[in-house]
Amino acid sequence: MMKEIYLDNSATTRVFPEAAQLMSEIYLNEYGNPSSMHHMGVIAERRIMEAGNILADILKVNRKNLIYTSCGSESDNLAIIGGAHANARNGKHVITSAIEHPGVSEAFAHLKEEGYEVTVLPVDRYGRVSVSALEEAVRDDTVLVSVMHVNNELGSVQPVEELAAAIKRKNPKTLFHVDAVQSFGKFRINPKRAGIDLLSASGHKIHGPKGVGLLYIADKVRVENLIYGGGQQQGLRSGTENVAGIAGMALAAKMLYDDLDRETERLYGMKKEFISRILQIPGVSVNGIEFGEGAEPLLDPARTAPHIISLSAKDVRAEVLLHALEEKGIYVSAGSACASNRPHISETLTAIGLKKDLLDSTVRVSMSVMTTQEEMNAAADALKELIPFLSRFRRH
Amino acid sequence: MMKEIYLDNSATTRVFPEAAQLMSEIYLNEYGNPSSMHHMGVIAERRIMEAGNILADILKVNRKNLIYTSCGSESDNLAIIGGAHANARNGKHVITSAIEHPGVSEAFAHLKEEGYEVTVLPVDRYGRVSVSALEEAVRDDTVLVSVMHVNNELGSVQPVEELAAAIKRKNPKTLFHVDAVQSFGKFRINPKRAGIDLLSASGHKIHGPKGVGLLYIADKVRVENLIYGGGQQQGLRSGTENVAGIAGMALAAKMLYDDLDRETERLYGMKKEFISRILQIPGVSVNGIEFGEGAEPLLDPARTAPHIISLSAKDVRAEVLLHALEEKGIYVSAGSACASNRPHISETLTAIGLKKDLLDSTVRVSMSVMTTQEEMNAAADALKELIPFLSRFRRH
Repeated sequence: MMKEIYLDNSATTRVFPEAAQLMSEIYLNEYGNPSSMHHMGVIAERRIMEAGNILADILKVNRKNLIYTSCGSESDNLAIIGGAHANARNGKHVITSAIEHPGVSEAFAHLKEEGYEVTVLPVDRYGRVSVSALEEAVRDDTVLVSVMHVNNELGSVQPVEELAAAIKRKNPKTLFHVDAVQSFGKFRINPKRAGIDLLSASGHKIHGPKGVGLLYIADKVRVENLIYGGGQQQGLRSGTENVAGIAGMALAAKMLYDDLDRETERLYGMKKEFISRILQIPGVSVNGIEFGEGAEPLLDPARTAPHIISLSAKDVRAEVLLHALEEKGIYVSAGSACASNRPHISETLTAIGLKKDLLDSTVRVSMSVMTTQEEMNAAADALKELIPFLSRFRRH
Repeated sequence: MMKEIYLDNSATTRVFPEAAQLMSEIYLNEYGNPSSMHHMGVIAERRIMEAGNILADILKVNRKNLIYTSCGSESDNLAIIGGAHANARNGKHVITSAIEHPGVSEAFAHLKEEGYEVTVLPVDRYGRVSVSALEEAVRDDTVLVSVMHVNNELGSVQPVEELAAAIKRKNPKTLFHVDAVQSFGKFRINPKRAGIDLLSASGHKIHGPKGVGLLYIADKVRVENLIYGGGQQQGLRSGTENVAGIAGMALAAKMLYDDLDRETERLYGMKKEFISRILQIPGVSVNGIEFGEGAEPLLDPARTAPHIISLSAKDVRAEVLLHALEEKGIYVSAGSACASNRPHISETLTAIGLKKDLLDSTVRVSMSVMTTQEEMNAAADALKELIPFLSRFRRH
């Protein structure tokens, strides 16, 4: 059997066996409803508290500021729609960037339909928002700003602390939401110190299960519910808590953060070598990355994430390349897998000004702690073999 | 070690080992994102399709009419708030019953805040809505009616087919939502034939995992999203699908429905015997049940569910009884566990006209296919021992 090489970790990750084992234990032996008053309920509630302690410790926040949702998109929607609604008397102007995940951009589209005025900030060729442009855009009636931490297609990192400071200088009442789905588990994030009011994360991007997300809500920040009911989670998110999912997500997060520094260094090392290798392939370019004077990739953690590489191969259709790699058991992504059933022209790639003929020729390689150097070498070799061959079949 | 007897299955159930095993397999080996174009995505999408086929087969509907959510409450909210919003031009009047789960009643409370007019139908002493009262309540501007199938505290069964017919006679445009969280897995439900437009169910009430719910949406029925994003699930519910949870819920449902008739008979048998036993205890009454001329409980499946028994013990506080049972390793519920952090006076028990001094003296015993006759006998024996003892410590 062909060994499979999974390089689509920004779409989703394999669950850590330890997390799967813990969830199985909860499904079978600690299955009580956390709202039940008896022993089985107490055990389940304790699992949620333990998970909260782990996650709160990682984010350096209080456990009571964490809400569990069903996914990153729910966290984004609760923060953005719920945050705008709950603070509507402060205004009906909201701001976001041109390269957000659909969980954010579609929430803004909904606010627009409701009559909110939406400002969409452009990004530079590296996929970064300008701090001064944001500061200029914030008004007295700006109720909420949402900018992602790490872009899911490019890996570009936004200066969220500076953005937060700029927003608060201009209007201290404006809420700042950060979609940290791609950065949680990769970067140390301290939303309290950074001045972030709302921060989203997701279980399945960090080797936890699908079906669970996280939302940090700062003290005194109010959001309106998306889901009403039994009043679980301080009344902010009703529905019986996904105990196993929450515990699995927390354990996965702990495993990542316990080993973060070493893994981050390893991932940046692999990214650097991979970029150097693929840039030797004729027609290949790498997006959202800055290069030094000797044309070496500059992988400043303040500007690019350790795990994502966006590459364009001239005259090769992304989908064709994806399937050719698939035949070799190598899984990458064309555009973002999070946007299902959509036209494939990426708004993010358009926003960074990628040349039109490359928009449809761009794939994303995304690593995780499970990715090995050997796998990355094999992927680079496969690209080296496939791209020159596939580019012979030009589209025009 | 004391053998534990879990009789709080209407709060939540133990996951079937087969479902836990399947989920573990998916977490570890079929972890792709269903939106990914490569093989790992295809495998994940196939799991969702297979689950859809199982669930569609059980409900006798088309797979494309099923939406997966994170819980029963989300399904209820999506149906009620989403259904009312999407059809607001038909009117702003909505109807529900006095004994709904908070996932329904709080969604109505939100609609009321938004300016909708809410009619709350009373129930009789058995916890049943009157068909004629509903028919009378439906108006030209009634946009949605929501009545639960099986009540979570009493086990009373609503005549949902007759209710549907009454609604449609009066106003064919009025949507009918049924919260089937307590009936799915216990009754054969055919929403299409019954004239139900929207039907909610939950994974963790049927030996599937917490964190996954189901919503049936009939053809041509529109609901407005609660969660916007990548456009998964026909654009109706964005967010990466909880593949393992969906597959686990479907497998659990299949296991229940494959053996439904035999299990239903067994549960009604245990319920009948349990009621007869506990009625011999001085001061004990059973709620929501009709009795025959010989004072035998009449357990008509059209009127009472097989798995829930609501009992009141005069002069015994429910919480005290619950904890006394807990010390014997027997877990029951005081009121509904789904309503977390709330005052304990049950709206359902109030609505059936339970005497005031019993409102606070009522516990729920709820069985599942995992419950044995031996366990029910032990629970009845424990009640027989505890109630006379505890009733000596009257409150007044």
